[in-house]
Amino acid sequence: MSDDAPGRQIGVGLLGYAFMGKAHVNGYRTLAYMAWPPPLVPRLVSIAGRNEGAVAAAAARYGFERSVTDWRELVADPEVELFDNSGPNNLHAEPTIAAAEAGKHVLCEKPLGRTAEESYDIWQRVEATGVKHMTAFNYRFVPAVRLAREMIEAGDLGEIRHFRGRYLQEWGSTTAEVWRFEREAAGSGALGDLGAHVIDLARYLVGEIGSVSASTRTFSPGREVDDAFEAVAEFENGAVGTLEASRFAPGRKNAFSWEINGSKGSLGFDLERLNELQWSEGTQGFQTILVSEADHPFWEWWWPHGHTIGWEHTFVHELHHLLAAIAADTAVGPHGATFEDGYAAAEVCDAILRSAESGRRERILRQ
Amino acid sequence: MSDDAPGRQIGVGLLGYAFMGKAHVNGYRTLAYMAWPPPLVPRLVSIAGRNEGAVAAAAARYGFERSVTDWRELVADPEVELFDNSGPNNLHAEPTIAAAEAGKHVLCEKPLGRTAEESYDIWQRVEATGVKHMTAFNYRFVPAVRLAREMIEAGDLGEIRHFRGRYLQEWGSTTAEVWRFEREAAGSGALGDLGAHVIDLARYLVGEIGSVSASTRTFSPGREVDDAFEAVAEFENGAVGTLEASRFAPGRKNAFSWEINGSKGSLGFDLERLNELQWSEGTQGFQTILVSEADHPFWEWWWPHGHTIGWEHTFVHELHHLLAAIAADTAVGPHGATFEDGYAAAEVCDAILRSAESGRRERILRQ
Amino acid sequence: MSDDAPGRQIGVGLLGYAFMGKAHVNGYRTLAYMAWPPPLVPRLVSIAGRNEGAVAAAAARYGFERSVTDWRELVADPEVELFDNSGPNNLHAEPTIAAAEAGKHVLCEKPLGRTAEESYDIWQRVEATGVKHMTAFNYRFVPAVRLAREMIEAGDLGEIRHFRGRYLQEWGSTTAEVWRFEREAAGSGALGDLGAHVIDLARYLVGEIGSVSASTRTFSPGREVDDAFEAVAEFENGAVGTLEASRFAPGRKNAFSWEINGSKGSLGFDLERLNELQWSEGTQGFQTILVSEADHPFWEWWWPHGHTIGWEHTFVHELHHLLAAIAADTAVGPHGATFEDGYAAAEVCDAILRSAESGRRERILRQ
Amino acid sequence: MSDDAPGRQIGVGLLGYAFMGKAHVNGYRTLAYMAWPPPLVPRLVSIAGRNEGAVAAAAARYGFERSVTDWRELVADPEVELFDNSGPNNLHAEPTIAAAEAGKHVLCEKPLGRTAEESYDIWQRVEATGVKHMTAFNYRFVPAVRLAREMIEAGDLGEIRHFRGRYLQEWGSTTAEVWRFEREAAGSGALGDLGAHVIDLARYLVGEIGSVSASTRTFSPGREVDDAFEAVAEFENGAVGTLEASRFAPGRKNAFSWEINGSKGSLGFDLERLNELQWSEGTQGFQTILVSEADHPFWEWWWPHGHTIGWEHTFVHELHHLLAAIAADTAVGPHGATFEDGYAAAEVCDAILRSAESGRRERILRQ
Repeated sequence: MSDDAPGRQIGVGLLGYAFMGKAHVNGYRTLAYMAWPPPLVPRLVSIAGRNEGAVAAAAARYGFERSVTDWRELVADPEVELFDNSGPNNLHAEPTIAAAEAGKHVLCEKPLGRTAEESYDIWQRVEATGVKHMTAFNYRFVPAVRLAREMIEAGDLGEIRHFRGRYLQEWGSTTAEVWRFEREAAGSGALGDLGAHVIDLARYLVGEIGSVSASTRTFSPGREVDDAFEAVAEFENGAVGTLEASRFAPGRKNAFSWEINGSKGSLGFDLERLNELQWSEGTQGFQTILVSEADHPFWEWWWPHGHTIGWEHTFVHELHHLLAAIAADTAVGPHGATFEDGYAAAEVCDAILRSAESGRRERILRQ
Repeated sequence: MSDDAPGRQIGVGLLGYAFMGKAHVNGYRTLAYMAWPPPLVPRLVSIAGRNEGAVAAAAARYGFERSVTDWRELVADPEVELFDNSGPNNLHAEPTIAAAEAGKHVLCEKPLGRTAEESYDIWQRVEATGVKHMTAFNYRFVPAVRLAREMIEAGDLGEIRHFRGRYLQEWGSTTAEVWRFEREAAGSGALGDLGAHVIDLARYLVGEIGSVSASTRTFSPGREVDDAFEAVAEFENGAVGTLEASRFAPGRKNAFSWEINGSKGSLGFDLERLNELQWSEGTQGFQTILVSEADHPFWEWWWPHGHTIGWEHTFVHELHHLLAAIAADTAVGPHGATFEDGYAAAEVCDAILRSAESGRRERILRQ
Repeated sequence: MSDDAPGRQIGVGLLGYAFMGKAHVNGYRTLAYMAWPPPLVPRLVSIAGRNEGAVAAAAARYGFERSVTDWRELVADPEVELFDNSGPNNLHAEPTIAAAEAGKHVLCEKPLGRTAEESYDIWQRVEATGVKHMTAFNYRFVPAVRLAREMIEAGDLGEIRHFRGRYLQEWGSTTAEVWRFEREAAGSGALGDLGAHVIDLARYLVGEIGSVSASTRTFSPGREVDDAFEAVAEFENGAVGTLEASRFAPGRKNAFSWEINGSKGSLGFDLERLNELQWSEGTQGFQTILVSEADHPFWEWWWPHGHTIGWEHTFVHELHHLLAAIAADTAVGPHGATFEDGYAAAEVCDAILRSAESGRRERILRQ
Repeated sequence: MSDDAPGRQIGVGLLGYAFMGKAHVNGYRTLAYMAWPPPLVPRLVSIAGRNEGAVAAAAARYGFERSVTDWRELVADPEVELFDNSGPNNLHAEPTIAAAEAGKHVLCEKPLGRTAEESYDIWQRVEATGVKHMTAFNYRFVPAVRLAREMIEAGDLGEIRHFRGRYLQEWGSTTAEVWRFEREAAGSGALGDLGAHVIDLARYLVGEIGSVSASTRTFSPGREVDDAFEAVAEFENGAVGTLEASRFAPGRKNAFSWEINGSKGSLGFDLERLNELQWSEGTQGFQTILVSEADHPFWEWWWPHGHTIGWEHTFVHELHHLLAAIAADTAVGPHGATFEDGYAAAEVCDAILRSAESGRRERILRQ
């Protein structure tokens, strides 16, 4: 494709227009000129939401051609070629499967399902249709995270010994009614919301987790889901580490941080400073790599070095990746998280819950 | 204006499609749905550049309706209501004045002119036309900078004693041919490019500068412009500090950092971590404010706290501000930098050059 | 006691003159004039070591009146009133008990014993003699740690939800022959050496640990002890967290860091920056408290604020505390770690080993 | 000298027992066993102070054999071989010269004199006696600073372009009566107290300063000396930078920080984290070197890496250096600051005052 010839269009149907829906829309709209030329030009066809007025307003704001109040209309819409599920967790399975069975490529927010079983079902039924599928683990698309993966693959860290990942937020004591606090809607609490990200990057950067030993806590009286979990993880490659998430860490706004120690060096990251990667080559001490050089991942699309990008642009990279896979009929993995990855993360989540309950180190199951 | 009724459109004509042009386009396109409802909906009418193929490609990429190879066509275009000058410094004066005199609102990249005299001329002639004018000092629109201004205005710092501002980059030893190294095109080097930002924020946050004592350096043999300058600044309100810029600071990618000490507290900032503001209330020690709370400047348009934004979104805020001033016929200042501010910064730049030459503390002149 | 009247002397007998012995000597010598007036003036009576020439040289260097090659001579020496055991772990039990039974106060390096059983025996037999006893958990005497304790006691953090403590070093791949790698001499590896510190501060700052779920790893082929461990800890007060230590973390020299999240705020610390305490009051964001103000713990003895102290001066505080307890016949706890604290930490260590072996969450036992 | 044979003694007479006196005593006492074997064993012979009771108490506390109330007694004391002047600035000249003329080696706190003229006189008259002389610029003896010097000498930074040094404190608004605020006693304010350190390290690390352009400020009504100064410095080797000091920077306790940019890399330092050196090799980005490795400057005397030292131990290194020069009759420079260095710094201070007054760039004079 030449530089001045953008590719053909792809019709997008979006379920949900809150936080995640807004972030996805910004991704579609921005990639169309920033990640130039886009492999497919996103055409914002239709957006679905339950409140008719609100979804119509969202359509006007975000530039969708039409809005609907039933996701089944998205599934039935022949102009929707990509179904983007940014709805709450209890709306992941049925619409996503239906869309795939209607022949649409599917993107689903994380966690894929509310349980490993539900996640497995989504994966299997969607995989059977032959469409492209992706779980929206957007942190794989942070430039610093991709660079870390490249360094690990290149052997810069040697043999991996430790992974310590924690995702800390502070808003758990809110008394607002949030679907993320309801078991039926969310499945789990900090675990599925934040912990799933930790687990996904652990798998992406280090490898499969073999077993976990965990405890969970619900600090808010009457809350149906976990507010925090702590786990020891043993990786199949011999590494060992910790996985943690909490919504009860005052001062930590969105602190997804991890550290990896290998035989030849260490890496560190904190989402609150997402343009930075910490790197100790051997025992030299940590240096701050401001991941914005011309040859850094994704940076060809952006600015001169030092002109940092924001959290929202992880979605530009993520959605571009999916569109490229659709356009060229290439694999979504290993850099994109497939529904198999979504399922794999869910098995770790389930094992964490089992371990918290049983008091035993639990093997990760795989159907 | 109701939430679901976007305002009328405004036709934008853009001169330049390189770094700054790309950043401005991203701003226009993003504000249209992110800073919702926009005061005016930017309509990308026409883009001008010298290379016909390249500017046509830019128009296709960025969504302009047409492209032209002579900026005079933008000026003559009745559908262009806002003339955005993102061209090199030697193309600031003539096109900007012509556009204003043709009745178009004007936005001009910094530095406004290559000298104080040229800047004064631009300001005076544009001011006489009655259009809105703005110098693109985008760092006023970093949320952390706006928060700093609000804190200073609220008296949180008490009496200001010191401002230390420095803008450090590292690419000065490049042998590439860059217009920023040519006196005719750029006027000055690090001074006008980086120092102008330092000076503008010094004025925005602390107040008018009364005099400067400065030295400049050109490290690259044969280079026509300064590679670095260092200055002591005396402010009219009694504060004293330093202004610095260099393109010869290895490891500093885009390090515009400043610190302000007042009688009641201190503030600090580093553009490489643009979502953070450092604040010492009294002598308590510095705390990191991650400027992303719901009640922080500009944040109503963005994400839950801790989900940081990038450098490019300073332009969303800046352009929104200008459109709001046009829509409501309100003043561009004090938060937006007018052409008078562009001229005032240029007088400080000129005084720095005079001082470097004369070896004397030089008063800032004002025509 | 008046300011110009130093107290009576106390004769010190020291076992060991390597790393820890040197640190203790520096503590005794420095406290005598810095923590003025000292509750007792340490008189360096005798030092014991196996190599006659080396221990004589140590005596000359450090100012001991005499040196001996058998610790039994220290125990038999009537001028030794305080027996300081800075020897390897397998020399903790017998000499310490013998010294106490000879009526000498005893200080013993951590871990107290190589197992909980051995630690219990030391504690019980020494406690029965009525002498003062202290386990050398010197990090309780870091000013920032003491300040943290004071803040927690004052209720500044509210209800404690999380403790995350990790002690990371990088020298584990050395091929040097070190007693710390031998099971007979050391008991355990990173666990007893580094993990014991983590456990002690967890108990000191948060409270008793109820159970642990853990994994250990030995990365070096043929090594007899653990190189790393990872544990989830459930505290009796409902808090939950992680305990970790590793000698295989390149770039981490002596990185004992912890974070505590409470309902009203969070604290953080890193031994590599031991003069700093991180504090988020509520969700304000973390501020750096440079713990060196006149009213900060231990600071009456030191310098104007901002003139930081080093690691070695934790021993000045620790030894001063012990001498004060001896002089005034007051309790060593709660700020000093008694042998009961040494035993309690050993029970957590043993539970971690049991859990790593059993794959079960293990309750902390207490005889 | 063999490892177990300490050198002969040297009798020390100390003028002053406040902050600096205490720091020097700690240095003498600690180096005697820590920097083993010491080149000379300091014998604390006599201490002088005006208040008889207080100086007697200081003697008892610090271990001096006797105390006197007139510094002339120190000069007359045949057992005093090294005269250590830790008194206020107006007691630097006469006692120091008298001591040297009595054949004693002399160490004098900074600034050497209250003016360049006084400093010159001290230097010349002491130099004429042939004794060893040293100005107590202790920050040359911070391990990180010495490492920086070694890296610069080795060419790691290439050609030096910039030095930015600032020393910020926050206590200037105190209403306490402090000799440092009196012109007669102190000579100048922040300039001589803090700025002299900045100037000395600028000279030590970068080279001679050729000229300065400066402003000073006195914020406190009625205060006789400067509270702050700001200067642009041009170095003889072509580098350019800033020198700053203030006692009016809330949140900055003892923040002596500097950055050096060279053609091949950059270095940075902050005294509040004195064990760390920041280093960007080329444009790689800054890494934190925790200056505590076995092969780092001065570290042979201390602890395993990562076990950091405090501010007070700069004096151990400084005094050891002086004793070694006395013992072996070697030069105090270039690592120790001689009285010539004390004088050279004073000339820069004077030029800063001249420039502040004249409004001109002032050449540094040298008699």
